[in-house]
Amino acid sequence: MASHTALPVARTIADLRLTVSDWRRQGFTVGFVPTMGALHDGHLALVQEAGLRADRVVASVFVNPTQFAAHEDLDAYPRQETRDAELLAGAGCALMYAPSVEEMYPADATTTVSVGAPAEGLEGVARPEMFGGVALVVAKLLNQVRPDVAVFGEKDYQQLMVVRRLAIDLDIPTEIVGMPTVRDGHGLALSSRNAYLTGEEQTIARRLNGVLAEAAARTMTGRAVGDVEREAQEALLNAGFSHVDYVAVRKSENLRPFEGGIVDGPARVLAAAWLGRTRLIDNMAAG
Amino acid sequence: MASHTALPVARTIADLRLTVSDWRRQGFTVGFVPTMGALHDGHLALVQEAGLRADRVVASVFVNPTQFAAHEDLDAYPRQETRDAELLAGAGCALMYAPSVEEMYPADATTTVSVGAPAEGLEGVARPEMFGGVALVVAKLLNQVRPDVAVFGEKDYQQLMVVRRLAIDLDIPTEIVGMPTVRDGHGLALSSRNAYLTGEEQTIARRLNGVLAEAAARTMTGRAVGDVEREAQEALLNAGFSHVDYVAVRKSENLRPFEGGIVDGPARVLAAAWLGRTRLIDNMAAG
Repeated sequence: MASHTALPVARTIADLRLTVSDWRRQGFTVGFVPTMGALHDGHLALVQEAGLRADRVVASVFVNPTQFAAHEDLDAYPRQETRDAELLAGAGCALMYAPSVEEMYPADATTTVSVGAPAEGLEGVARPEMFGGVALVVAKLLNQVRPDVAVFGEKDYQQLMVVRRLAIDLDIPTEIVGMPTVRDGHGLALSSRNAYLTGEEQTIARRLNGVLAEAAARTMTGRAVGDVEREAQEALLNAGFSHVDYVAVRKSENLRPFEGGIVDGPARVLAAAWLGRTRLIDNMAAG
Repeated sequence: MASHTALPVARTIADLRLTVSDWRRQGFTVGFVPTMGALHDGHLALVQEAGLRADRVVASVFVNPTQFAAHEDLDAYPRQETRDAELLAGAGCALMYAPSVEEMYPADATTTVSVGAPAEGLEGVARPEMFGGVALVVAKLLNQVRPDVAVFGEKDYQQLMVVRRLAIDLDIPTEIVGMPTVRDGHGLALSSRNAYLTGEEQTIARRLNGVLAEAAARTMTGRAVGDVEREAQEALLNAGFSHVDYVAVRKSENLRPFEGGIVDGPARVLAAAWLGRTRLIDNMAAG
């Protein structure tokens, strides 16, 4: 434990477990929010929610290298630990867990985890490395912290599905809670990667949620999924996005396609699109 | 909870957790021994060891389908639950956990676990399905029971390495203990599969441990690993084994080969050989 802020910081699994064991001995329940730092109000909403559901909240700040591909923004990913610690303390977090890469991934580690179907398609196509890395780090973090409840944002909706599947399939006894996406006044989903956007790009980025909301509304009128997806993709390109990886209307429960091509149950509209070198994702309920 | 023996039996994860939580509330530590049933004195030694290391012992009895290949003996694998429950009670076990296949593997499960290097070679060659199945079921069982300590037999030495790697890499906070192999009066390693042997085959089977002991002794004289392995393989065929999958001299710590071909540190001699349709494995320390 060492920190220049008011918030205690654990940098090793052993230190983390000492604090959590101490809480357990006092009869406290434990909530957990995993983050990659560069915190914004979206993360803080997760911490506050965890605080409503548990007596003590741990937030991890770990930029997980195994979920970045070689060409991605691992080195450039924003890091601001002192500020993150202040923000976490303000949101009611009791411990920041900020392990080193060596603490998380000793050189002789060889185990991998694959969640299968929920990780396939959508983000799994554009970023095939990611969900294997997410599954491994979340399995490790949940076993390190052993929380009663862990809170994840719906902004990374497919990731939430992957984490739910992982926890169920490996019998990790932590309740996985999904929280609605926090948006700015223009509806733009908060994201650490928004910091990469120029002023002009930000104006375009704010159109993403509107296009998805309209697509969601159209699925409700019985319009064919393929048409809705194509129209939304065109709307994003017309709005100024440089490239669209996907717009997809899927079943909320498992992200599988609707077999008849018509939405006949709870649905989610998901998209990933580029503005210059920045890739944004968002999603919305539809039905 | 329902049983026709004195030993309580849990058939669901929920029932298991109720009992374990109750023990935890009383301040008891928990030991765990996973088995596939058809118990013999080797298993009971593991239960007794767990009882020395923890206040309460759970033993699972689950013939895990994911670690059998299609052509293997899943259906024929011996099952004798009532007798197993009696034996466990006699060895000091406090709870038998005997889940159904459906309880362990719900139809929508998709997650897989791979331990990488420790699962490659040796048993991983002959039975490529096995260690993936072992890693998944052990990860699940350890998360279901959440024991302080789990005891595994050294007879399945590579499996023990796989389980150790799994627990370390996924940060499962259970101490993994390996126990020396229990042998009959002739040195034959106890195994549920010994029940398949005819009287004549049993006589041949009893030569396996002697051949390995001699191979272990030869490595200590500085003889080349390749020669020791070849001589032991010939000795097994001369003794009457129908086929030898492998005899291998490896580093005890990680089962990797000795690079110079000479044993220069703690070693393990491992073998797998067939008697008719029965496959036997054994291993021994060398150095």
